[in-house]
Order: sequence, then structure tokens, then C-alpha cells
Amino acid sequence: MEVRRAVITAASRDQRRLPLQTLVDRDGCPKTALRILVEEILSAGIEEVAVVICPGDEAVFSAAAAAHARRLRFVEQAEPRGYGHAVFCAAEFTGDEPFLLLVADHLYVSGPAATCAQQVVGIARSERCAVSAVQPTRESKLPFYGAVGGRLVAGKRGLYEISDVIEKPTPTEAEQRLVVPGLRAGHYLCFFGLHVLTPAVMDLLSADVAAADKDTRVQLSPALARLAGRERYLAAELAGYRYDLGPKYGLLSAQLALALAGRDRDEVLSGLVELLGQRQLA
Amino acid sequence: MEVRRAVITAASRDQRRLPLQTLVDRDGCPKTALRILVEEILSAGIEEVAVVICPGDEAVFSAAAAAHARRLRFVEQAEPRGYGHAVFCAAEFTGDEPFLLLVADHLYVSGPAATCAQQVVGIARSERCAVSAVQPTRESKLPFYGAVGGRLVAGKRGLYEISDVIEKPTPTEAEQRLVVPGLRAGHYLCFFGLHVLTPAVMDLLSADVAAADKDTRVQLSPALARLAGRERYLAAELAGYRYDLGPKYGLLSAQLALALAGRDRDEVLSGLVELLGQRQLA
Repeated sequence: MEVRRAVITAASRDQRRLPLQTLVDRDGCPKTALRILVEEILSAGIEEVAVVICPGDEAVFSAAAAAHARRLRFVEQAEPRGYGHAVFCAAEFTGDEPFLLLVADHLYVSGPAATCAQQVVGIARSERCAVSAVQPTRESKLPFYGAVGGRLVAGKRGLYEISDVIEKPTPTEAEQRLVVPGLRAGHYLCFFGLHVLTPAVMDLLSADVAAADKDTRVQLSPALARLAGRERYLAAELAGYRYDLGPKYGLLSAQLALALAGRDRDEVLSGLVELLGQRQLA
Repeated sequence: MEVRRAVITAASRDQRRLPLQTLVDRDGCPKTALRILVEEILSAGIEEVAVVICPGDEAVFSAAAAAHARRLRFVEQAEPRGYGHAVFCAAEFTGDEPFLLLVADHLYVSGPAATCAQQVVGIARSERCAVSAVQPTRESKLPFYGAVGGRLVAGKRGLYEISDVIEKPTPTEAEQRLVVPGLRAGHYLCFFGLHVLTPAVMDLLSADVAAADKDTRVQLSPALARLAGRERYLAAELAGYRYDLGPKYGLLSAQLALALAGRDRDEVLSGLVELLGQRQLA
């Protein structure tokens, strides 16, 4: 299975400014968050990227992508009809091909061996099926994520066959449908914001969009739950961390993580020690 | 001396995006750097602020100032003719009044007693003269700053009467003209990026702008050096730190300093410890 296309959703009204923020990447180069994300995508051999945006945002996003703008196509989501609807806006772009799916307000940090995008695309290529990156997450954080149930693929560490998907499950739902044998007690596999999906997902979303009235938000997780009933669909733990830029100190955490994993680690650590040692002012 | 007006220079081509970056302020509220700076200014009792910008930047700066936009007037610097020229662009706005002067790409962190702007404006009010905030700076950093020579005002700790001003002095110039009795050896008083200036400065700049040809950058320091010969002009060490957003990790340092001096100190320290403790990835 070849994965040549990627979709970034960036139309959420709350968070559309985040991809435009400037960060210093692991090589010590100041770049917008969008550009860092696009470079993560390109590292996985992706050739073309659709960015789903709010109407009117094309010029700023194109500028923020800098030299990579020629790889991007912009698709406008005219109304805020939910994450599933935003993904479906790119259906014409993805056509009958599988695609890497990312949200624009997350950044990923991995070890030097392979980027997170390389890892998930690599698994999709070798396993020839849809793959969602997941991470074991404490029960208390279930209200923030989509979560999956399933079982370990025999002989593959950190790879699971998905049987169910629930968006923001209650603890009871999670206990009844999402317990994964082998995980630490009270932990569930929550989405990491990085997927390789098959064209079947666009068919499923098409039905959901057609069935929803204008005021209902179409989510992605219900379509993924049905995907698990139709096709082999895997969840993979990656060697990496994800940083959501949305929370109050999200940009700070992402910048620190990039810096501490990169070439300027020593310089940034020294600066940190200096700051922590400054006298408190009256 | 009443100080009712402030001038922010934000027209430098390299750094005009910095005031638009989002940071979390000391109270834990996400804001643009520009808005944090405007709030620092308003804390000092300033009523009106002129922002000197590149042509075309008014809409984004106005949006970045959010609720404070009504306090701002925008003045365009049509061509990049130097910092002194940028300040002079606001001459009509300042008229015959003293004014607080700041650069748009610095943020200030002080103790809870008084903001840096309050401190420098307070000194100007009580001493009834122009005041530049300064900080003792190692000789090796002279190539980056304007520096002043002078002597301690009797009975006032951290307050100096300025006799000379040199922009980016060589070590020899500094040793001959800028040694300040009482400072640690090898240290000089360098500008902090925060001044209260008198209308005389605009007269001096007017002469410099008229005398310069179109391709010569007009600096501020030569006018300030002449000011010291005409009026009482003080330098003040403040209880505070300044953070230049321009260097590679400038935003990171400023954000950390704000967070560590603010209400979210414990949360941010915990996050820091967690990040430092994350396993290194292969």
C-alpha cells in the first residue's frame, strides 16, 4: 500500500492561529508550526498535502508553509460542521487513495531513528491496512480523546487490531468496550492525532455527512468504529511524543520538547538553569 | 512631569512578526506579545500609545492589541531609515510632551511591587527629567547595545546622571568614556530598551533626520548623547528583567520567565520536570 497524500485539518475556529506560531525546530531553525508539521509529513515520503482551512485563511497558511507551499492544496470548510466533516472536505483530493491524516495544532517529537509520520506510514505500508497511532492514556484523561478497544497482534509489540472506537468515552463505556489485555490497569489506548486511513473512511463519512442536519457536528470516530467492522484496522504505539499546541502552555511544552530533543539541547538547558537561578524580585 | 503618552517602535523588517506571537502572561492569560507590552504601558498611567509600524501592518497589529486597540494610534515608517528615524515618525503624536519609549520586540518581567514601566515613569515624574532604564552589562556584550557613561546621583542607589551615550561602543571607547565609578570591573551601563524622553529629543532627531541622506540610518544614541549635554538626563537600574524576543530562543525564554514569575509557576515547573524526565527515544 502506497501512501502519497496527506490531509491536515486546520479549520477549527479556536485553534487556527496555532499553526502560524513560530517555533525553533530540532535543527535549530525558526519555523512556523505548520512548516514543521509539513516537514514531518514529507519525511514519510508523502508527495501532496491538502490543508482544510477556514474560508479566507489560504494566504496566511501559504506564507506560513514557506518553501513547501507548492506541495499544499487548500480546501475550505465553509461551516464548522465537526472534525469528520472537515476530513470529508478533502475527499475529492484523496480520491481512491489511502492518506495520512493529521491535525494542524499538534507537533510530534521522536528519536533520531524515524519521525512519527515515518513510523505510522511504515506500518501501514507493511501491514497494508489503516493504522491509527495511539498512546496508553490514564482513564482520567478519557474525556479529551477518542479511544480504541482491541487486542495485541500476535508477535508484534505495540501493535493492536482495533475492534471498537469511541469518541470521549465515559469510564463505564471504556470499561465495557475498550479494555485492552496487556495494558496497565486503568489505561486505555487513546488517539495520538495521526492516522493512515483508507478510502473506505471517506465513503463512511459521506454517509454521515448526508445523514446529518446542518447543525449537527459530524465526528470522525463513529466512521472509524464502522471501519473496524469492515476492514483490518490497526492501532500502533509509536516511539515518540505528541504535543498539543492548544492548551495554555502547549506552545511552551512543544518548544521545550523540540529544543531538548535537538541540536541546541545544551544551550537551552543552560538558559533554563540561568532562569531558574534568577533572584526573585520584590 | 506628567507622562501621558508612549511610543512603541515596531517597524523593523526583521522583527515585526514578534509582537504578534502568542504568549501566556503572568496571570495565566494567553495574549499577544503586543498586548502584554501595551498592558505594561497602561500600568504606568499612560493614556495614549503610538505604534510605529511598517506600511500595511495596521490591521494585524490592531487585532493583536485586542481590547486595547482603541488606545493605539498607528504611524507608518515608510522606509527603514533607522531606529532614530522610527522614533521621529511619532514626533507629531508626542508634540511638546515627554513620552515613554519602548521597542515592540522586548518584554519585561518585574517583581509584584511595580512593573518596569511604572518604575521608569515614576522616576521621571519625581526627578522631572528624561530617564533611560539601564542594566550593568559585561564588556563582551557591548557590541549589542547602546551604553552610557555617568556618575551615581548622591544618595540614590541605582540612579546615575548620564554624561555620555555611545551606540555599540568598542572596548576602547567604553574604557575611555563610559566607565561608571561603583560598577563591577568590566561592566558598563547598557540600555534596557525603556526610556522616558523629553520633547528635546524630537528636536535633536529632527536635525539628524534633516542632515542624513536617504541611505543613512538615523540612530537614537547620538541624539541622546547631545541630550545629556543640554538637560539633566538620568539612567536607572530597575528591579526587573528584560527579554528580547528576537534571538532564536527569545520567545521561549520570555515565556518561561513570565510563567515562573506568575500564578502558574508550580504547574509550569512540574511540566518542566516531566519533560526533563522523559525517556530519550532511539
